[in-house]
Amino acid sequence: MIELVIKNGKVVFPSDTIETSIAIDQGKIVAIGSSSIMPRGVKSLDAEGKFVLPGCIDPHVHVRDVFMGATANDDFFLASKATSLGGTTTIIDFAIQKKACLPIDAVQERRAEADGEVVIDYSLHPSITDLTPETIDQFKELIDLGLPSFKLFLVYRKDGLMVDDGTLLKVFEETKAHGGLVGLHAENVAIIDYLRDEALRKGHRKAIYHAYTRPPITEAEAVNRAIFLANHLNAPYYNFHLTIKEGVEMFREERKRGRPMYAETCTHYLVKTIEDLKGSKGINFICNPPLRQEEDQKALWKGLADGTVSVVSSDQVAFTAEMKKLGEDSFDMVPNGVPGHEFRLPILFSEGVRKKRININRLSEITSTNAAKIFGLYPKKGIINVGSDADIVIFDPNLKKTITTEDSLYSMDWYPYEGMTVKGYPVITISKGKIIWENGEFQGKKGDGEFLRRTISQDLLRTPVV
Amino acid sequence: MIELVIKNGKVVFPSDTIETSIAIDQGKIVAIGSSSIMPRGVKSLDAEGKFVLPGCIDPHVHVRDVFMGATANDDFFLASKATSLGGTTTIIDFAIQKKACLPIDAVQERRAEADGEVVIDYSLHPSITDLTPETIDQFKELIDLGLPSFKLFLVYRKDGLMVDDGTLLKVFEETKAHGGLVGLHAENVAIIDYLRDEALRKGHRKAIYHAYTRPPITEAEAVNRAIFLANHLNAPYYNFHLTIKEGVEMFREERKRGRPMYAETCTHYLVKTIEDLKGSKGINFICNPPLRQEEDQKALWKGLADGTVSVVSSDQVAFTAEMKKLGEDSFDMVPNGVPGHEFRLPILFSEGVRKKRININRLSEITSTNAAKIFGLYPKKGIINVGSDADIVIFDPNLKKTITTEDSLYSMDWYPYEGMTVKGYPVITISKGKIIWENGEFQGKKGDGEFLRRTISQDLLRTPVV
Amino acid sequence: MIELVIKNGKVVFPSDTIETSIAIDQGKIVAIGSSSIMPRGVKSLDAEGKFVLPGCIDPHVHVRDVFMGATANDDFFLASKATSLGGTTTIIDFAIQKKACLPIDAVQERRAEADGEVVIDYSLHPSITDLTPETIDQFKELIDLGLPSFKLFLVYRKDGLMVDDGTLLKVFEETKAHGGLVGLHAENVAIIDYLRDEALRKGHRKAIYHAYTRPPITEAEAVNRAIFLANHLNAPYYNFHLTIKEGVEMFREERKRGRPMYAETCTHYLVKTIEDLKGSKGINFICNPPLRQEEDQKALWKGLADGTVSVVSSDQVAFTAEMKKLGEDSFDMVPNGVPGHEFRLPILFSEGVRKKRININRLSEITSTNAAKIFGLYPKKGIINVGSDADIVIFDPNLKKTITTEDSLYSMDWYPYEGMTVKGYPVITISKGKIIWENGEFQGKKGDGEFLRRTISQDLLRTPVV
Amino acid sequence: MIELVIKNGKVVFPSDTIETSIAIDQGKIVAIGSSSIMPRGVKSLDAEGKFVLPGCIDPHVHVRDVFMGATANDDFFLASKATSLGGTTTIIDFAIQKKACLPIDAVQERRAEADGEVVIDYSLHPSITDLTPETIDQFKELIDLGLPSFKLFLVYRKDGLMVDDGTLLKVFEETKAHGGLVGLHAENVAIIDYLRDEALRKGHRKAIYHAYTRPPITEAEAVNRAIFLANHLNAPYYNFHLTIKEGVEMFREERKRGRPMYAETCTHYLVKTIEDLKGSKGINFICNPPLRQEEDQKALWKGLADGTVSVVSSDQVAFTAEMKKLGEDSFDMVPNGVPGHEFRLPILFSEGVRKKRININRLSEITSTNAAKIFGLYPKKGIINVGSDADIVIFDPNLKKTITTEDSLYSMDWYPYEGMTVKGYPVITISKGKIIWENGEFQGKKGDGEFLRRTISQDLLRTPVV
Repeated sequence: MIELVIKNGKVVFPSDTIETSIAIDQGKIVAIGSSSIMPRGVKSLDAEGKFVLPGCIDPHVHVRDVFMGATANDDFFLASKATSLGGTTTIIDFAIQKKACLPIDAVQERRAEADGEVVIDYSLHPSITDLTPETIDQFKELIDLGLPSFKLFLVYRKDGLMVDDGTLLKVFEETKAHGGLVGLHAENVAIIDYLRDEALRKGHRKAIYHAYTRPPITEAEAVNRAIFLANHLNAPYYNFHLTIKEGVEMFREERKRGRPMYAETCTHYLVKTIEDLKGSKGINFICNPPLRQEEDQKALWKGLADGTVSVVSSDQVAFTAEMKKLGEDSFDMVPNGVPGHEFRLPILFSEGVRKKRININRLSEITSTNAAKIFGLYPKKGIINVGSDADIVIFDPNLKKTITTEDSLYSMDWYPYEGMTVKGYPVITISKGKIIWENGEFQGKKGDGEFLRRTISQDLLRTPVV
Repeated sequence: MIELVIKNGKVVFPSDTIETSIAIDQGKIVAIGSSSIMPRGVKSLDAEGKFVLPGCIDPHVHVRDVFMGATANDDFFLASKATSLGGTTTIIDFAIQKKACLPIDAVQERRAEADGEVVIDYSLHPSITDLTPETIDQFKELIDLGLPSFKLFLVYRKDGLMVDDGTLLKVFEETKAHGGLVGLHAENVAIIDYLRDEALRKGHRKAIYHAYTRPPITEAEAVNRAIFLANHLNAPYYNFHLTIKEGVEMFREERKRGRPMYAETCTHYLVKTIEDLKGSKGINFICNPPLRQEEDQKALWKGLADGTVSVVSSDQVAFTAEMKKLGEDSFDMVPNGVPGHEFRLPILFSEGVRKKRININRLSEITSTNAAKIFGLYPKKGIINVGSDADIVIFDPNLKKTITTEDSLYSMDWYPYEGMTVKGYPVITISKGKIIWENGEFQGKKGDGEFLRRTISQDLLRTPVV
Repeated sequence: MIELVIKNGKVVFPSDTIETSIAIDQGKIVAIGSSSIMPRGVKSLDAEGKFVLPGCIDPHVHVRDVFMGATANDDFFLASKATSLGGTTTIIDFAIQKKACLPIDAVQERRAEADGEVVIDYSLHPSITDLTPETIDQFKELIDLGLPSFKLFLVYRKDGLMVDDGTLLKVFEETKAHGGLVGLHAENVAIIDYLRDEALRKGHRKAIYHAYTRPPITEAEAVNRAIFLANHLNAPYYNFHLTIKEGVEMFREERKRGRPMYAETCTHYLVKTIEDLKGSKGINFICNPPLRQEEDQKALWKGLADGTVSVVSSDQVAFTAEMKKLGEDSFDMVPNGVPGHEFRLPILFSEGVRKKRININRLSEITSTNAAKIFGLYPKKGIINVGSDADIVIFDPNLKKTITTEDSLYSMDWYPYEGMTVKGYPVITISKGKIIWENGEFQGKKGDGEFLRRTISQDLLRTPVV
Repeated sequence: MIELVIKNGKVVFPSDTIETSIAIDQGKIVAIGSSSIMPRGVKSLDAEGKFVLPGCIDPHVHVRDVFMGATANDDFFLASKATSLGGTTTIIDFAIQKKACLPIDAVQERRAEADGEVVIDYSLHPSITDLTPETIDQFKELIDLGLPSFKLFLVYRKDGLMVDDGTLLKVFEETKAHGGLVGLHAENVAIIDYLRDEALRKGHRKAIYHAYTRPPITEAEAVNRAIFLANHLNAPYYNFHLTIKEGVEMFREERKRGRPMYAETCTHYLVKTIEDLKGSKGINFICNPPLRQEEDQKALWKGLADGTVSVVSSDQVAFTAEMKKLGEDSFDMVPNGVPGHEFRLPILFSEGVRKKRININRLSEITSTNAAKIFGLYPKKGIINVGSDADIVIFDPNLKKTITTEDSLYSMDWYPYEGMTVKGYPVITISKGKIIWENGEFQGKKGDGEFLRRTISQDLLRTPVV
């Protein structure tokens, strides 16, 4: 009993794009082929002239982030509704261990916030902050529960997120032993602190000093160290938000040598630069690592094109300009992070595909397929093929739009991409066979999303599969 | 109007294998999906429990080879019929320029032999032997005619096939200028001649001296030189029949550096060794390059598994044991080459997939997809996808068979794989939607095959795409 | 007016060893040549059958070390007397900045202890522990004063020696700007602390756990990080006491790439192993980095032979077994460091030259010439040539000796090399033309040694000169 | 009994330059030191303000070359007299095997021409042209006779010098087995022939086409091949007259990997370029490999400075402009080779030391020490040290001179360096203790030079010693 047919779209497969139709039944894709063989009388969507892509996956979002005195104005219902408008059908957020608690507690708390709220499927990366013996004992359990990817922070001492190299090495060891993957926020906090203190001592307070006191070497050293320790244990490594050309080169080298190293960058690092920190709204653009130079953007795009950089995520944090003002007197007091996850796909299409930096198939890989493979959701998610979940975006390559803050579903008072014009925009989002957004109308349902248990392929943990 | 449905097979896609069905119309695949949506009342094949693979491509065959005094007992009808029994639905043979003639003449002569005879589609690699100014003028024309791949021989001086480095460099230059690809038979003839003369002077005449006088360095030096010259011009390179571990390493390095270098090996180098030259029928196994050591086999399998070696061809030559006797008194007088192309797929399945050296998806790449991409036939050939030619093999993974000389359609008096038992065998071959072999019954038709015009993707000529 | 002639010794030049004679006047070498031309009637030493080497330089000693509750039983007179018995004619100790004081203060204090006491020439490496703005201002001054080499500690937090990456990067920058060289004690303290706490929690207290909680990765990571930061600034780097095979490989690679990276190891890492920590006197052998495996020794010897490792120092600390007992209940409480600098040359001769790991010329480089060049004393020190200081050791290759604790001039109650038999021993030490030791008789004079101002060659700071 | 004292010169040692004096007795250096200790009453030379260098060695000269229809106007007396005027005290010429004769015959013939004629010491490189079994048997004998270095030509087919890869590989094997070293004239003759024939067919005859038909790839490929074959056998390799930047890079890489690869270039490649072939006297500058671009010169100088290129030779051939006219109608008929060996040292001093590309110590290495070490003459030749032959040049760094053809001792009608002004010139040449040139007066004696038996150090054949 076919429920839905998507007709005659330009369907994006891993290495081809073919004009054909897709039949969906019980939330799964059951057939791909000429419209002539598709059953009649069932609901159908005409996708002629449009791209039909696997639903996007965003493996790096912070819903309702509480950080540096600010609390983001969102929740799992709002965030999942907002991002699905932009073509995302799966998110992976974090479950951050509290000091003296266990990681599993954080998972349960976070699930309590999300289950019944999300409109699309989701999962969580446990984040370790306190490596007690009891915590160590829990790695196997977490991985067996379908949470095989971990995040550690090498920064943010004061907030208690930061871990040191002792913890890092041990976590690499434990995750490797049980088939997991470690991802890092990699910056060298000692050098940053030195430079920040020096800047403050000299009276520098403006937003641009956020970038000046976190120069590329502060990220490069941490990435290099993470790679070194991972290589020591022959362990895989995932680098959240890589931003610098030196880092792209490191991943290129490691991957050439067959090492399972995966780099992610974020939308804003591809379209915003250090210049944005110099304006009157500079503090709004404060995020970590900071925005970089054009030459870094270039290297990131090249890395995305040649396979070195595997994923573009959003690193979404819904801080308003109002909250950012907590640090209006000094760059080091600004709550970090930028919003905008709804615009990931259209921005990457306009800046990537239209500008011929990447083709449509590669766009689909970096926004969907690769994250599915790396985090253990493939082939359920991340591909249009018979048997996969019917998570699909229909994308009109000719729809033009100028981004405004009002477009946001969040009650925001600024948007990093305000004023940017994109050509190419998602028009329909389908999650597990159901249309949740159609031409700007929300048709999804709170709680239709489910928690996803994940298993990472052993191959991917051994060699650079994507 | 669907003509044929293949039901419920394990369909082998580039990175997945999915149990599903395929609908075919007018020689093309028109749908892939659940059998429930497939039209009823049309002819269907039940493929349950069987692999459904894209038809194999053999880019290295010598039909009716005339060489060293022998003439192979076949023609294009017989050869194409025989190979399609083994799952091959496309072959690429050679059109060898005669001295003082033009390459296009050789193409026309060869087409006259093949057109109307072949039961499956075919194409030709022009082979240059006499680089006159008129020949140079013809590269663009040949490429525009759909013949963008060239073969040069660095050996066989006496028979007039051999070219020197002057010709080689110029052909690299001309093909690069017009979007073509050069492939070589790469051995160092000066070292081989020195060693052969020394062996003969010492009275060594046995078959094993064929291998002893063509040690790995004779191939390694030529491969290294070819790569060096190609790199000088930033040109792509295809290496016919790579046989040595040193060569695998070279391709691994070049490809890591992003160079568009493609290596092919042949079935016999993966299952036969230098030991086969020592027996009483040793001369039958004489081919160039010679059979190698087990450690070379191991390196070739590893290269196939990790993506370094892109293609397994047959290098088919149908010389009988009777013809081989021309050289029974001295290894240097034996007509080179071995038959057996019908067994390529089942041997690679048994030795590769069953022994877990490669998986079924990689098997499909090295026998079909990669050759299609490299030689400019993709996505018409080389993949099961909506819109592609319906060239399909249905392969029973449990059918067991012991190879005998009598299995050959050729009237052969020996077979290199005689006595070898394989588990897994093709049961149905479909060419452009028509069943040509079904359970050992030939249902094809002389002349149904067509000459294929090819265009190689510019990407593939610039970076190691497969 | 020639004062002294050394006759007919086997004089060790950088790449040759020649039987010839040396004439000395006013503390300098004034001629090298056949004894027949040497003036008669002046004091002469018959060196026939003996090696005549440039006086050894020890760039890593801790005189009267105060550390972890212990104070070494020596002073500059005793230490310089003791080491010159073993052929050393120049030492470089440290001037460790006290918190809230300036580096120059430490230099002055240390000079006050040494001047008028030393029997041989000496110099100091300033050690930075508190990088205030005033300290930063002092780099140029220190370098101009002849103190161009600095040492930083990445360990020993509790004792206040440790600096973090912020300080490290800044010191690299400042020293590079003014023509200086940074050396490190490179270990990763966070990993060590993690492993130590884990071991203590599990009740492990024995000496061997000192090594188990400082495994090779704890040194390797720090060395890798130091090299990475130095490369970022294109700065030179000197690694005090390298002990691991991974580190040797890193220096080999960097030096191949033309980077001015210099590695030092110490006598004990070449002849003692982790096994020495397991015995009843295990705690005596506690030093940082810890003793390693035989495979590390092998790599260090190979690095010394092929030019990768440039220097062997002593890292002399005169802690008695009595003092070591401060940590008899727990490995982490043992004062670190081992004595034995008197035996550096004879041990390296017996273990290096006699065992054919290095030749006599290389022995002279790693104990004298290279340290002279790296630390800016060459060609005044470190070579036998006309015009150089007459710092000379006459070494009898056939003198056999079994080392006992009683041999030490210090009032020691243990010696790491107790019981070791060496063949080859210094018989005469000459400092600036004066015999200070002759066959075990001290003839030197307190205060004859001078403070040496040093200037490092710009070439050496740019490329791996030695 | 001292015979001669050289007083107060700036004596150039391997890594230092020291103002001191040298005493000589019975042809050897017997002392180095302050003039005050030198015996009075013996003949002395005042070298104050002048450099005192080890006599130069020229390992690549062609005395009385007979080639392409021309015969050079010199003999061993004239050539050795001429070159010693320029500071050279040892030459190594060739003994080229005649087809169907043995290498030893060529050695004997060549010695018959040289013995009793040379004014300075000399040796010979046997050159193999006909690798018969009898020739193979002679390698050990030649090496034992003190002739351990061999030269092969990969070019000059018509003149019978050329060998192919079969011979090359075998000669590498035999020389390695017995402790010898193979040197090549490395160019790819097949590519050159192709380009030459194409040029001639198009009517290009001018001198510049000599260079156009031997582009860098023709040398690069041959050098790469030679290195590949040498590496296959783990054999050492010496490259005569390297001229291209690509080649410098290859040697840099191989040497970094520890391979015993030695590159030589010649004076003219460092100061002349392809532009010299364009003038009216262009044919005079025809030599093989041809003159190159400025960027190649730059790479060669850099290679000399950083240790990649070990030797500068002359490749002296005394062809007159009159002889060169044999090819005035067509570049391919011009006898190859240029004269000028007298000017090697002053040109390299002016262009190298004065222009700060190399220092005086490196100048001495590339003109003397390195050739002595590579070809087995060290420490008898190539260094100023006690015990070495008293082969010495006294060089006035301030003597200015404009080179004219009339300066040549040969009756030449052109000179490649005509009109070039150098500052710095040899004023005295001493061979084995005897002054043979003093301020332009010849004081040497025909026959005072001797044939040198050589033994190459095994270290040098294993690792890149110089």
